[in-house]
Amino acid sequence: MSRRYLDIAVDRGEAGEWMHTLVKELYPICRSITGDGFRRSLQILGERIPLSVREVASGTPVFDWTVPREWNVREAWVKDPAGRTVVDFRDSNLHLVSYSVPVRGKFSLPALREHLHTLPEHPGWIPYRTSYYREGWGFCLPHRTLESLTEGEYEVLIDSSLEKGALTYGELLLPGELEEEVLVSAHLCHPSLANDNLSGVSLAARLARDAMESRCRFSYRFLFIPGTIGAIAWLSLNEERVAKIRHGVVLSGVGDGGKFSYKRSRRGNAEIDRAACHALAATGDPFGILDFHPYGYDERQYCSPAFNLPVGRISRTPFGEYPQYHTSADDLSFVTAGQLADSLEKTLAILKVVENNGRFVNLAPKGEPQLGRRGIYSSPEQNEALLWVLNLSDGCHTLLDIAEKARLPFDRVSGAAALLAEHGLLREEKEPTCPSDSAARLSW
Amino acid sequence: MSRRYLDIAVDRGEAGEWMHTLVKELYPICRSITGDGFRRSLQILGERIPLSVREVASGTPVFDWTVPREWNVREAWVKDPAGRTVVDFRDSNLHLVSYSVPVRGKFSLPALREHLHTLPEHPGWIPYRTSYYREGWGFCLPHRTLESLTEGEYEVLIDSSLEKGALTYGELLLPGELEEEVLVSAHLCHPSLANDNLSGVSLAARLARDAMESRCRFSYRFLFIPGTIGAIAWLSLNEERVAKIRHGVVLSGVGDGGKFSYKRSRRGNAEIDRAACHALAATGDPFGILDFHPYGYDERQYCSPAFNLPVGRISRTPFGEYPQYHTSADDLSFVTAGQLADSLEKTLAILKVVENNGRFVNLAPKGEPQLGRRGIYSSPEQNEALLWVLNLSDGCHTLLDIAEKARLPFDRVSGAAALLAEHGLLREEKEPTCPSDSAARLSW
Amino acid sequence: MSRRYLDIAVDRGEAGEWMHTLVKELYPICRSITGDGFRRSLQILGERIPLSVREVASGTPVFDWTVPREWNVREAWVKDPAGRTVVDFRDSNLHLVSYSVPVRGKFSLPALREHLHTLPEHPGWIPYRTSYYREGWGFCLPHRTLESLTEGEYEVLIDSSLEKGALTYGELLLPGELEEEVLVSAHLCHPSLANDNLSGVSLAARLARDAMESRCRFSYRFLFIPGTIGAIAWLSLNEERVAKIRHGVVLSGVGDGGKFSYKRSRRGNAEIDRAACHALAATGDPFGILDFHPYGYDERQYCSPAFNLPVGRISRTPFGEYPQYHTSADDLSFVTAGQLADSLEKTLAILKVVENNGRFVNLAPKGEPQLGRRGIYSSPEQNEALLWVLNLSDGCHTLLDIAEKARLPFDRVSGAAALLAEHGLLREEKEPTCPSDSAARLSW
Repeated sequence: MSRRYLDIAVDRGEAGEWMHTLVKELYPICRSITGDGFRRSLQILGERIPLSVREVASGTPVFDWTVPREWNVREAWVKDPAGRTVVDFRDSNLHLVSYSVPVRGKFSLPALREHLHTLPEHPGWIPYRTSYYREGWGFCLPHRTLESLTEGEYEVLIDSSLEKGALTYGELLLPGELEEEVLVSAHLCHPSLANDNLSGVSLAARLARDAMESRCRFSYRFLFIPGTIGAIAWLSLNEERVAKIRHGVVLSGVGDGGKFSYKRSRRGNAEIDRAACHALAATGDPFGILDFHPYGYDERQYCSPAFNLPVGRISRTPFGEYPQYHTSADDLSFVTAGQLADSLEKTLAILKVVENNGRFVNLAPKGEPQLGRRGIYSSPEQNEALLWVLNLSDGCHTLLDIAEKARLPFDRVSGAAALLAEHGLLREEKEPTCPSDSAARLSW
Repeated sequence: MSRRYLDIAVDRGEAGEWMHTLVKELYPICRSITGDGFRRSLQILGERIPLSVREVASGTPVFDWTVPREWNVREAWVKDPAGRTVVDFRDSNLHLVSYSVPVRGKFSLPALREHLHTLPEHPGWIPYRTSYYREGWGFCLPHRTLESLTEGEYEVLIDSSLEKGALTYGELLLPGELEEEVLVSAHLCHPSLANDNLSGVSLAARLARDAMESRCRFSYRFLFIPGTIGAIAWLSLNEERVAKIRHGVVLSGVGDGGKFSYKRSRRGNAEIDRAACHALAATGDPFGILDFHPYGYDERQYCSPAFNLPVGRISRTPFGEYPQYHTSADDLSFVTAGQLADSLEKTLAILKVVENNGRFVNLAPKGEPQLGRRGIYSSPEQNEALLWVLNLSDGCHTLLDIAEKARLPFDRVSGAAALLAEHGLLREEKEPTCPSDSAARLSW
Repeated sequence: MSRRYLDIAVDRGEAGEWMHTLVKELYPICRSITGDGFRRSLQILGERIPLSVREVASGTPVFDWTVPREWNVREAWVKDPAGRTVVDFRDSNLHLVSYSVPVRGKFSLPALREHLHTLPEHPGWIPYRTSYYREGWGFCLPHRTLESLTEGEYEVLIDSSLEKGALTYGELLLPGELEEEVLVSAHLCHPSLANDNLSGVSLAARLARDAMESRCRFSYRFLFIPGTIGAIAWLSLNEERVAKIRHGVVLSGVGDGGKFSYKRSRRGNAEIDRAACHALAATGDPFGILDFHPYGYDERQYCSPAFNLPVGRISRTPFGEYPQYHTSADDLSFVTAGQLADSLEKTLAILKVVENNGRFVNLAPKGEPQLGRRGIYSSPEQNEALLWVLNLSDGCHTLLDIAEKARLPFDRVSGAAALLAEHGLLREEKEPTCPSDSAARLSW
């Protein structure tokens, strides 16, 4: 078959290791929605894919928001009355509430306690907390540590800075045959959390690498951004580019052991939504399809009413539905190479459908063409697909429509279309050319 | 929340007693589709709500019908061969077939029998019969009484009159903020039958009283009319007003012990129909939703094809599905204050949805607005509603649409909209302003 | 009721025998897609119905195809090494692969074997094979016979001819009140196979005879054609007539013991499709409704995308789903008079719906008309139908729409419409006259 886009055979072992290695490399870095950790992370990604690094100055208005000051941390700890360090940012970057203002002082235990966060139900885990848009400070620690603290005076140091600087993000545009784009977006603002979202970042990086090595119909735009403010900033700075986005996915939480799930775009039945349902059903594995809802990751921004982009979200277990979510237990062991490879394979299966989908017109639409004399009658499976494609290639139906109506795998349908096109029996149509006669519309 | 229409907290004990007392007061009166009993009933209602009494002269053509002669009764009885009164209209006004012509004469038992109606399956009950549009006469009595009658000559007196007069009905228009109307219609033509329909009449009267004491967006038109001919007469005399009716309900049989039920308007999915489904599901109580069918009460007339009004019917057990229907067993004990109060509460819940429904446009539709800096982020439930309202307030969706898609209670959604409007994030739109771009239409 | 089209009461005994006798008469003839056997079969049909016989010359281009050479056989046999005839075309015309080229020669058993077809799983049955569009030859025989053959030299004779001639088909047009047509198509190209398709041929012939004797609204066009090439040739020669076809059915395999089944047209919800669902549900018998798929009989051609005709297929057990399919076991005992009569009755029930369907406008649409004074109130069943017809006769709904929405049998609805039309309460509308007001559209 001549035209076959995004024709990538995944070597699950190799690809899984590639992604897990990247997760490991990024894991120790302290990231937030701005700051040097984010820059360092982009640098690591840039060693694998040709990323452009963008900076948006603090104070820049972006729609209803303003780019915040840049946050960096040098040191942060709590010392107990005996002078022992009981919480140290160097041990885990989760220990410090993100965007904590600088603090240097002494606190009684009760006063300190108002700034300490723990998870009583998981006494050994450190929670992950942020205070981006409300000035404050705090430490996160295992509940077990909190309980061991004795009365007395504690010394606290947070040597952080909140200064005019920039919001940083990474962007990569891979030109395809068409100017129309597929958007792949992953948030990179969380510190040492493996599934949320180094898994999504690694999957996006691997997709970019694979797309660079294959023939793509669409151009691909990859974004590695801070959550919420990053998507809003990108949309604000690229409003005129948004109309080119034909399909998109937000990647987040794709390395855990749960089943693969797809959250529909706001449109509910966009081509990417239908492609996901079709491709996942064809895998034979359990999978979840979630209706759109306005809470979530950056699909919230891409699917805001003024944009309403056809952008779905790919995850495994949805965020908030696993206990390790936003805790130190979302670590390197929670995410495996095999789960990452499975997510890659399924994401590619979805994208292959939109890449290879098309709308054809049967050039011998009066009765059936005589396939026998062309020598393209073969197995019953193949014949079935040929007849379906011929019958429904009326300018109204895409190959995905046909696959859905025929209840056949998309690959078999697109293969049949390629064969028929080779024999001059089909012509591709860019725009729908449905007969205006309402009686010609099919009701199924 | 500033705008909150029909904001009535029902005191079930007080409201139930109020309605049951009214049922009791109206119960003994002999009513028919015309006559002094109907007038006396309107007078009693007029002591509670400022009713206008209308009269339409006998002989007036109303669409395919003609207003009939007026019927009144002074006396009616049957005496047995021994001169004992065996059936007496004074004991129960159900004893006389409604619209019986005057009769004075003697009849053998077999000749009399052709004019006697009983219910063999309920030998102690008196059936309810009418002969409005076919001249005739008859008595209704317990089957037990019929069986005790001996051969011999019976004396019959029906001192009734059928004369040129009028069809009488009561009407009350409560002006709201809008000229557009909600129609509330109850038939008042049945004599001593409590559920059918003094229950509906009392509920309508109570709704009127409550609506008078609260802020209403719509104007409310209450009709207390004779069934069929009354609705036809009103429609005929008010054809130009009909276009103002935005929503409507027929109230009948709302005091029995069955579950609350709503019969859809002919449109099937009018706003009132959807409001009913939504509001009743939110109660948590069992309820019934009946598809439209052209048999029933006055919704038959309001939903005739030339009018096709968005008028549903509120009942508890649908008429004809309880054995007491149209018999003397539909008495004051069959209808309880508690059941009436429950019907009031649920009817109000439905009307509150149409009163407070609206269509808004998100004024910060590019990405999400920053709710945090406005201090309106609160509980997760509240936030969920805020995000849904922002996301779907695109000029296409009403609050009820949003409540349905979000599967949230209407109140929470309308509360969120009010809060967002207060903060300048929403503007109400009177007319739908859906983007013409077909890709923007949501398919769910 | 005055207007009642296709008002045929089937005498199942007589009609079943009539059809089975015709099957028996046609059964022994050797037919193929061309040739004298096809002509002889049309002659037999012509004794019962006034058929026109058409001939299309070999070599005529018909869309993507060319009319093939004509095939005729005089003699065909295989003699074993001892000179005994082991396979003889005179015993069963299934023995010879259809369209076998002339052969005269001697073959070793292994060489002969490549031209022999059997059914190992049914060792006593002869399979049915064709080689219309690929030059070749072969014999079909019971597997048991094949196994008894001994090594040695076999003599083969196929005294057939493949010469310029014609494709022959039969056509009958019965004019109705309208020029618009119902197409009834049956393939007649199979040799001694009773269910596939002498059953369909006999049913079509009987329908034609019955339609000739009754009042028909539509004109009826009956086609007795060779499969595939016949339908393609007819479409090619009658392209301008195709637009007149309003409804159609392909009849095939209607004499076996399976349940009656209907395969939807490509449109999926054409009037004939809905009529079939409605009429079959009303029978109370089990039945099957198959979605459209592009494999099958001549509905493949009628439903090709350029024509997309509202043509469904009527069968009992779908072809290929019974073991006797395309074997000598599809014989005169496989098809019974009773099953043929049942198929006739159900086919007529479907056609009666499209014949008697119509769209009416209620001439008293404001409220209900007073049926009582017209004396047309009768049984509750009748009243229910009257009210439904009045309520939904708004120029949008056909009687079939009403029957579906009311969940009433079509006959009761069309009877009610006739009664109301007689009383001047309805007027038929040829074209839909739906109110443009979108609020008037019903959503159920």
